[in-house]
Amino acid sequence: MKSSDDIDNLGFARVDLGRKARQGFGEVVYGEGKTVGQIIAILKSLDSRGQRPALVTRLDADKAAIVADAFGGDFAYFADARLGRLGENRPSDGLGVIAVACGGTSDIPVAEEAALVAEALGNKVVRLFDVGVAGINRLLACEGELRSASVVVAVAGMEGALPSVIGGLVEAPVIAVPTSVGYGASFGGVAALLAMLNSCAAGVSVVNIDNGFGAGFLASRINHMGGRK
Amino acid sequence: MKSSDDIDNLGFARVDLGRKARQGFGEVVYGEGKTVGQIIAILKSLDSRGQRPALVTRLDADKAAIVADAFGGDFAYFADARLGRLGENRPSDGLGVIAVACGGTSDIPVAEEAALVAEALGNKVVRLFDVGVAGINRLLACEGELRSASVVVAVAGMEGALPSVIGGLVEAPVIAVPTSVGYGASFGGVAALLAMLNSCAAGVSVVNIDNGFGAGFLASRINHMGGRK
Amino acid sequence: MKSSDDIDNLGFARVDLGRKARQGFGEVVYGEGKTVGQIIAILKSLDSRGQRPALVTRLDADKAAIVADAFGGDFAYFADARLGRLGENRPSDGLGVIAVACGGTSDIPVAEEAALVAEALGNKVVRLFDVGVAGINRLLACEGELRSASVVVAVAGMEGALPSVIGGLVEAPVIAVPTSVGYGASFGGVAALLAMLNSCAAGVSVVNIDNGFGAGFLASRINHMGGRK
Amino acid sequence: MKSSDDIDNLGFARVDLGRKARQGFGEVVYGEGKTVGQIIAILKSLDSRGQRPALVTRLDADKAAIVADAFGGDFAYFADARLGRLGENRPSDGLGVIAVACGGTSDIPVAEEAALVAEALGNKVVRLFDVGVAGINRLLACEGELRSASVVVAVAGMEGALPSVIGGLVEAPVIAVPTSVGYGASFGGVAALLAMLNSCAAGVSVVNIDNGFGAGFLASRINHMGGRK
Amino acid sequence: MKSSDDIDNLGFARVDLGRKARQGFGEVVYGEGKTVGQIIAILKSLDSRGQRPALVTRLDADKAAIVADAFGGDFAYFADARLGRLGENRPSDGLGVIAVACGGTSDIPVAEEAALVAEALGNKVVRLFDVGVAGINRLLACEGELRSASVVVAVAGMEGALPSVIGGLVEAPVIAVPTSVGYGASFGGVAALLAMLNSCAAGVSVVNIDNGFGAGFLASRINHMGGRK
Amino acid sequence: MKSSDDIDNLGFARVDLGRKARQGFGEVVYGEGKTVGQIIAILKSLDSRGQRPALVTRLDADKAAIVADAFGGDFAYFADARLGRLGENRPSDGLGVIAVACGGTSDIPVAEEAALVAEALGNKVVRLFDVGVAGINRLLACEGELRSASVVVAVAGMEGALPSVIGGLVEAPVIAVPTSVGYGASFGGVAALLAMLNSCAAGVSVVNIDNGFGAGFLASRINHMGGRK
Amino acid sequence: MKSSDDIDNLGFARVDLGRKARQGFGEVVYGEGKTVGQIIAILKSLDSRGQRPALVTRLDADKAAIVADAFGGDFAYFADARLGRLGENRPSDGLGVIAVACGGTSDIPVAEEAALVAEALGNKVVRLFDVGVAGINRLLACEGELRSASVVVAVAGMEGALPSVIGGLVEAPVIAVPTSVGYGASFGGVAALLAMLNSCAAGVSVVNIDNGFGAGFLASRINHMGGRK
Amino acid sequence: MKSSDDIDNLGFARVDLGRKARQGFGEVVYGEGKTVGQIIAILKSLDSRGQRPALVTRLDADKAAIVADAFGGDFAYFADARLGRLGENRPSDGLGVIAVACGGTSDIPVAEEAALVAEALGNKVVRLFDVGVAGINRLLACEGELRSASVVVAVAGMEGALPSVIGGLVEAPVIAVPTSVGYGASFGGVAALLAMLNSCAAGVSVVNIDNGFGAGFLASRINHMGGRK
Repeated sequence: MKSSDDIDNLGFARVDLGRKARQGFGEVVYGEGKTVGQIIAILKSLDSRGQRPALVTRLDADKAAIVADAFGGDFAYFADARLGRLGENRPSDGLGVIAVACGGTSDIPVAEEAALVAEALGNKVVRLFDVGVAGINRLLACEGELRSASVVVAVAGMEGALPSVIGGLVEAPVIAVPTSVGYGASFGGVAALLAMLNSCAAGVSVVNIDNGFGAGFLASRINHMGGRK
Repeated sequence: MKSSDDIDNLGFARVDLGRKARQGFGEVVYGEGKTVGQIIAILKSLDSRGQRPALVTRLDADKAAIVADAFGGDFAYFADARLGRLGENRPSDGLGVIAVACGGTSDIPVAEEAALVAEALGNKVVRLFDVGVAGINRLLACEGELRSASVVVAVAGMEGALPSVIGGLVEAPVIAVPTSVGYGASFGGVAALLAMLNSCAAGVSVVNIDNGFGAGFLASRINHMGGRK
Repeated sequence: MKSSDDIDNLGFARVDLGRKARQGFGEVVYGEGKTVGQIIAILKSLDSRGQRPALVTRLDADKAAIVADAFGGDFAYFADARLGRLGENRPSDGLGVIAVACGGTSDIPVAEEAALVAEALGNKVVRLFDVGVAGINRLLACEGELRSASVVVAVAGMEGALPSVIGGLVEAPVIAVPTSVGYGASFGGVAALLAMLNSCAAGVSVVNIDNGFGAGFLASRINHMGGRK
Repeated sequence: MKSSDDIDNLGFARVDLGRKARQGFGEVVYGEGKTVGQIIAILKSLDSRGQRPALVTRLDADKAAIVADAFGGDFAYFADARLGRLGENRPSDGLGVIAVACGGTSDIPVAEEAALVAEALGNKVVRLFDVGVAGINRLLACEGELRSASVVVAVAGMEGALPSVIGGLVEAPVIAVPTSVGYGASFGGVAALLAMLNSCAAGVSVVNIDNGFGAGFLASRINHMGGRK
Repeated sequence: MKSSDDIDNLGFARVDLGRKARQGFGEVVYGEGKTVGQIIAILKSLDSRGQRPALVTRLDADKAAIVADAFGGDFAYFADARLGRLGENRPSDGLGVIAVACGGTSDIPVAEEAALVAEALGNKVVRLFDVGVAGINRLLACEGELRSASVVVAVAGMEGALPSVIGGLVEAPVIAVPTSVGYGASFGGVAALLAMLNSCAAGVSVVNIDNGFGAGFLASRINHMGGRK
Repeated sequence: MKSSDDIDNLGFARVDLGRKARQGFGEVVYGEGKTVGQIIAILKSLDSRGQRPALVTRLDADKAAIVADAFGGDFAYFADARLGRLGENRPSDGLGVIAVACGGTSDIPVAEEAALVAEALGNKVVRLFDVGVAGINRLLACEGELRSASVVVAVAGMEGALPSVIGGLVEAPVIAVPTSVGYGASFGGVAALLAMLNSCAAGVSVVNIDNGFGAGFLASRINHMGGRK
Repeated sequence: MKSSDDIDNLGFARVDLGRKARQGFGEVVYGEGKTVGQIIAILKSLDSRGQRPALVTRLDADKAAIVADAFGGDFAYFADARLGRLGENRPSDGLGVIAVACGGTSDIPVAEEAALVAEALGNKVVRLFDVGVAGINRLLACEGELRSASVVVAVAGMEGALPSVIGGLVEAPVIAVPTSVGYGASFGGVAALLAMLNSCAAGVSVVNIDNGFGAGFLASRINHMGGRK
Repeated sequence: MKSSDDIDNLGFARVDLGRKARQGFGEVVYGEGKTVGQIIAILKSLDSRGQRPALVTRLDADKAAIVADAFGGDFAYFADARLGRLGENRPSDGLGVIAVACGGTSDIPVAEEAALVAEALGNKVVRLFDVGVAGINRLLACEGELRSASVVVAVAGMEGALPSVIGGLVEAPVIAVPTSVGYGASFGGVAALLAMLNSCAAGVSVVNIDNGFGAGFLASRINHMGGRK
C-alpha cells in the first residue's frame, strides 16, 4: 500500500491522492452533503497533483455555479446529470464502444450521468434512449449497436426489465442501473432494483438505484481491461 | 341479493349456493387449511344443486386421493397444479382462445393451474411455455399465437418481465401472474410481483403470487364478455 | 412486427407510431419527469399521424397550461385527475357500461382518471363515488348499477376492501385500484394494494397504486372484446 | 403495587401470583418455547393459590398429553385452538354476549381460541363462522346476532376486510384479529393486519396476527366493564 | 339495515345519515384530501338532521378558519389535535373515567385528539402526559389514576413500550396508539406499532399510527357499554 | 426508587429531577416536536436544581436563537450537530480518551454530535474524520489513535463497514452509529444499520440511525466505569 | 499490525492467531455453516498457541458430541445456549458484576449464551430471568441487583421494552439483545430490535437478534475497562 | 436475430441452441424446480449440438446422481457448489486471472460455485478464502494476489463489507456476491446485499444473493474482453 504521504488531511476530509496511481483514476467527489467550500478545497487538493479530470457527482446547480467561479472555464457542469468536471475528458483510449441504453425519457438524467462519466474517463459512448421493453421493436431496431458494444449500461425504472432483454441479445457484460422513475409500488426504484438482481439473463450485474456514475465508472474499467493482460 | 335460502350452513362453512346464479359459477373450494372431511362436505353441498364442475385449489395429493375415493371416477386430480375437479369441463363456449404463457419450466405448475381452470370453465387454451425474455426470440416466435388470443395470461418468476413485453405486442388484456420461482432477492415472488405492478405496458393487471387459479378464472370471465352486451 | 419506419426517433424519445395499428390505441404520454418541450414534441409526433385523442397522464397544472397554449382549444386538461387530452373522446362504442366505484371522497382523483380515460377511449361510464365498505348499505344501494356493468373499476385506499365486496356481487371482471389515501400503516397505499392482491373474491385483478389510467385503459380493452370474436 | 411476596421465583420463571388480585385473572402461560416441565411447574404454582381456571396457549398436542397426565381429568386440551385449560370455565357472568365471527373455514382455529378463552373467563359466546366479505349476503344474514352482541371479535386472513364491514354495522366495540391464512402477498398475515389497522370504520382495534387469545381476553374485559362503574 | 333514504348523495360523498341511529354516533369527517367546500357540505348535511356534535379530523388550520366562518361560533377548532367540532360536547354520561396517557411531550397532539374526541362523545377524561417508561417512577406515581379508570388510552412513539407496562398494572382495557414521534429506525411509527402489537400484556389492542381519533372513539364505546346489558 | 418529589410536573412534561442523582446525569431534552416555550421551561426546571450542563438535541437553529436569548451567554449552540448546551462542559474526568471516527465528510454532523456530547459529559475526545473503508490506508494510518482510545465511536453511512474494520483492530468497545448518508438502496440509513448489526467483529454494538447523542452518551458512561469498581 | 506469521492458513480458514495479543481474546468460532472437521481443525490451531478458553457459538448438539470426542474432557457443551468451550473459564477478574436480565422464560437460551460467554471471559454474572415489563413489580424487585451491576445485558423478545425500563433505572451501560421469541408481527425479532434501537432511555446500545454471544463479549470488554486507564 | 430453427421445443422447455453462437456460451440449466427427466432432456438437446461443457446450477445431490448415470463419466458433480458439468472445462484462454475471495468459511459454497463456473468457461482462478474485514490483516496479506487479478469476485455474508475494502485496493472490476450466511437482522443476505449496493468504492457491481454462478459467468465475460476490441 502507498504510504500516508499520499493522504492530504483537510480535517473534514482526507483526500486520497494515491488513488490515481493505485487504481488508475483519482478520487471522485460525492457532492451531496458537502458544502461548496469543502468541494472546492478537495478539488484544489486533487488539482495540486494534476489529477484532472476530477469529477463531482450529485452536485446541485447552485453549488455548481460557485465552484465554476472558483475554477473559471476549467469547470464544466452538466445540469441534467448533476455532474461537474474539472479539466477535459481523457482522450478516448478504451478497447471499444460503451453503449448506454435507457428505457424511457424520464431515465435520461441517470443515463447521461453514466455516459458523461464514461466519456470523461476516455471511452467512446453510444446513446440509445427510450428503448423500453413495452415497445420491443424499438429495442430490436438497435440490436446492431448493442451487439457491437464492448460493454452495455442498461438504465431503467418501473419494472426494470431492460437489462434482462439486452442480456439475452449480447455477449458483452451488461451493467444494470435501476432508476427511481415510477410511482406507487415502484418504491423509489426498489421494484426495478429487484427485477435486475433477479435477471434470468447471465452476464448482468447491478449498481445502486440512480447510480449512473458507478455504472459509467465500472464500464470504463471493463473497457480498459486490455492493459492488464 | 338472493335470499339466505341459498346458504347451506355446515357450521364450519356456509356454502354460497346462490353464487352460480348470481355470478355464473359456483363456489371454488380453497383447499389449504381445510380437512378432507370439510372439503368433501362442501363438494357434496355444491353437488346437491348440480353445480358441476366444482373445483378445489391448493389440494395436496394425499387429500386428493381421499376425495377421489369419495366421488369415484367423477373426481379428477392434476398433481402439478394441485387442482381437483368434480365433474367434467364445461363445453368450450368463450369468445376466443386464451393464451397461457410462462417464462420458464419452473413456472409450469402455476401456468397449468391457470390453463386447467380456464378449460374447466369452458375456454379453449393455448399453452406457450418457456418463453422468458432473456431469450426474446423464443417469445417473438410465438407472436402470432399471442396476437390471435382474446386474453393472455402471462406467468413469470424472477424478474417478472414477461407481461411487459407481451403487453406491448398484443391488443388483448394481459393478466400477469408472478410466481415464487427464484431465490435470494426474489423474496418468494415479490420481485416479480412488483415488476408486474410497475409494468410500463398498458393493459396489464396483476393477481397474487402463484395465483394461477385467479388468473384462469378472470381470463374466463373476460372471454365470456359477449353475453353481457 | 411492424417495421422501424413506425418509430419516430426524437433523440430523447422514440415515439412508437405503429402502436395504434398494432394495439388499437396510440402511445400514451407519461407526463412525470418529462419537460414541457418533450411532451409537446411527442404529442406533435402522434398528431402528425392523426392519432387523436392522445393522452398525457400525471401532468401538472403548470405544464398543462403551456401545452394547452401550443395546441389551442384542442387540448383539454382535467385538474383533479391530472390528465391531458389532445382531441375529442372517441365515440362510445364499447360492449357495455364501465362502472367506476370508489370508497371515499379522497379517492375521487384516481377514480376520475380511470373514468376520463375510459371515456376518451370510447366507453360509457357510470360513476359510483363514496361507497366504502364501512357503510355497506351505501354500496348495496348501488347493486343494480354494479351488476349491469360489463366491467367494474373499484378504487379504494385505507383497507382496500371495496373490490372484495364488489367481486362477490357481480359477474363482470373487477379491476382493483389501490390509492395512497390514508396515513400511518397505510404506507402510501401498500395496505390497500396487499388487501386487493389477497382478495378472496374471484375475478379481481389489480393495478399499481393510484394507477387510475391503467385501470381505465384495461377496462376499455375488456369492454371492446367483441371485435376479437 | 403488591409486595414481592406475590412473586414465586422458580428460577426460569417468576410467577406473578398477585396478578389475579390486581387484574382480575391470573397469569396465562405462553406455551411456545417452554418445556413441559416448566409449564407444569408454573401451573402448579398458580394452582397452589387456587387460581383456576389457568390457561396455556400455543400448546402442542404432544406437550399437552404430558401436562394432562400430570393433572388428571382437571386439564382439558382443545387441539384446534392449541389451548390447554386447568380447571373449569368460570360461570358466565359478563354483561352480554360476545360474538366471534370469522371469514373462512381456515380461520376457525384462531376464532376458536378467542371463543374458548372468552368462555373460560365467564362469557357467553356466539360463533359466526365463514361469513367472509366476498359473499356479503352470508354476513348480512347474521346482522341480528352481530347487533345484539356486546363485543364482536372479527377474525380474518387474506384481505382482512371483515372487521371494516362489521364495524359499520354494529355499535359494539370490534376487536380485529388478522390470521396468517393466505399465501403469496399475504405475507403470513401482514396484508390482513394492515387492512385492519387502516379500517375506515370507527370502533375497531387490532391485536397481533393469529392472536385469538388476546382478542378473547380483551373481549372478556370489556364485557365485564359493569363492575368498574 | 336502514333504507337508502338515510343516504344523502352529494355526488362526491354519500352521507350516511342513518349511522347515528344505527351506531350511536353520526359520521365523522376525515378532513385530509377533502376540499373546504366538501367539508362544509357534509357538515351541513349532518346538521340538517341535528347530528351534533359533528367532528372533522385531520383538519388543517387554514381550512378550519374557513369552516368556522361558515358556521359562526358553533364551530370549535383545536389546533394541536387538528380537530374540528360543530356543536357542543355531549354531556358526560359514560360509565367511568377514561385515562389518556402519553410517553412524551411530542406525543401530546395525538393524545389530545383522543382526549377531545372522548370528551365530545360524553366522557370524563383524565390526562397523564409525559409518563414514558424510561423514567418509570413518573408512571408509577400515576398508578392510582390509571387503576381507577374504566378505559386507558396509551399513546407512545419511539419504542412504544408504555401500553405494555400499563397493561400489567390495570384491569381496564388498554387501547394502544403508536405515534410517528421518533427518527431513524422508528420508521414513522412502525417501531412503536410493532411493539404494541407484540405486547406481552394481555388486554391491549392497537389502532393505526397517530390515530388518536380512533382510540378516543373506541374508548367512548367501551365506556358506554352499560347500555347494552 | 426516588420519591415523586423529584418530578416537576409542568403539565406537558414531567421533568425527572432525580435522574442526575440516580443515573449520574440529568434529563436530556429531545428538541424535535417541542415548542420553544416547552424547551425553555424544561431547561429552567433543570437549572433550578443546578443540573448543568443541560443538553438539547435535534434543535433547529431558529429555536436555538430564541432559547439563547432566554439564557444569555450561558447557552451554546452547535449548528452542525443541531445541539444546544446550557452551562459549561464538565471537566474532563473519564478513564481515557474517546475516539470518534467517521467514514466520510457527509457523516460529520452526526460524528460531531457524538463528540460534543462526550465532551459535555467530561471526556477527552479525538476526532478521526473521513477514514472510510474504501480507502483503507486512511484508516490504518490512524491505527495508533484508535488502539489507544478507551472507547471508539464509529460513524458511517452507505455500506456502514467502518465499525467492522475498527472492531477487528482495537480492544476497546466500539459503538457503531449508522447515518442516513446515502441514496437509493441505503434507505435512509437502513443499509448501514443492518451492516452494523451484522458485524462479524466482536465487541460492536449499535445505536439508532443518526443517533450521535446516544453514542456519545454511552461512550461517556463506559469511559467513567472506574467509579463503579 | 501484527505480521502475517500470525495467520494460520488452513485453506478453508485463516485463523487469526494474533487476535489474542491484539485484542485480548482469541478468535471465536462461528459454528453455523462449518463442518465438524473444520471446527476441530480451527480449535486445534488455536490450542496450538495455548489460546484457551476457545469458544464455539451456534453449535448443534450432534456436532458438539463429535468435537467433544476429539478433545476429551477439555470440551464442555451447553445445550440451551448451543455454546461449546475448550478449556476452563478465565478466573473472574473484571471490574464488577455483569447482570444478565431477560423478559421471559423463552428468552433464556439467549440470555444463557450471554452469561456463559461473560463467565468464560472472566466475569462474575448475576442472572435475573423472567422480569418482563408486563409485570413491572418483578423487575422493580430486582432494582438493587441491577443498580449494583457494572454492566447490564437486557434480553427480550416480543415488544422488547425491557432495556428501556432498565435504562432508566441504572447508571451502568445497558446492552440490549432482541430475541426471536414471539409470533406474527414480531417478525422473528424485528419488533424487539426496532423497539430497542428506538429506546428513549440513554445509555442503551443494541446487538443483532439472538446474539447473546455478542452481548456477553462486549459486556466483558466494558467490565475490563480498568486496564486501559 | 437467429431464426427459430435454433429453438428446440421440448414442450416444457424451449432450448435456445443459438445462444452459443449469439453469446459465446450455450444455455445454462437452472436446476431448481426442474425434474431429473427435464434436466437430462435439456442436456441431451444441448449435447446434440456439441455444446460442451454444459452446466447445471442448484442441483441437488440426489438428482445429480441420476443425471450422472445418464451420461456416464462425462458428468461431474461438485457437491459444495451444487453444480453439475457435462464435459470438460474449456481450456484456459482468458486475458488474466480471476481472483475469488470470500469473507468466511461459511461463504465457501457460493465462492466455489463462482470459481468452478469461471474455470469451466476457460479462466484461471485463484481462491482467497476467509479474508473477512474483521481481521483486515488477513486481507491485506493477499493484496498482491488481488492487485494482479484482472477481475475480482468478492463473496461475503453478514455485513458484506469485503467488496468495499477490495474495491479500494484494486484497479480491476469487482463483482460483489452477497451470501445468505448470517442470522437475525441479516435477513437471509439482505444486509450484505444492501451494503454492497451502497459500496462507497467505485468499480463495484452486485449480483443476486448466493448467485455464485452469475458472478463467475460475468467474470469470465469480462476476462475475455480482448476478443471484442
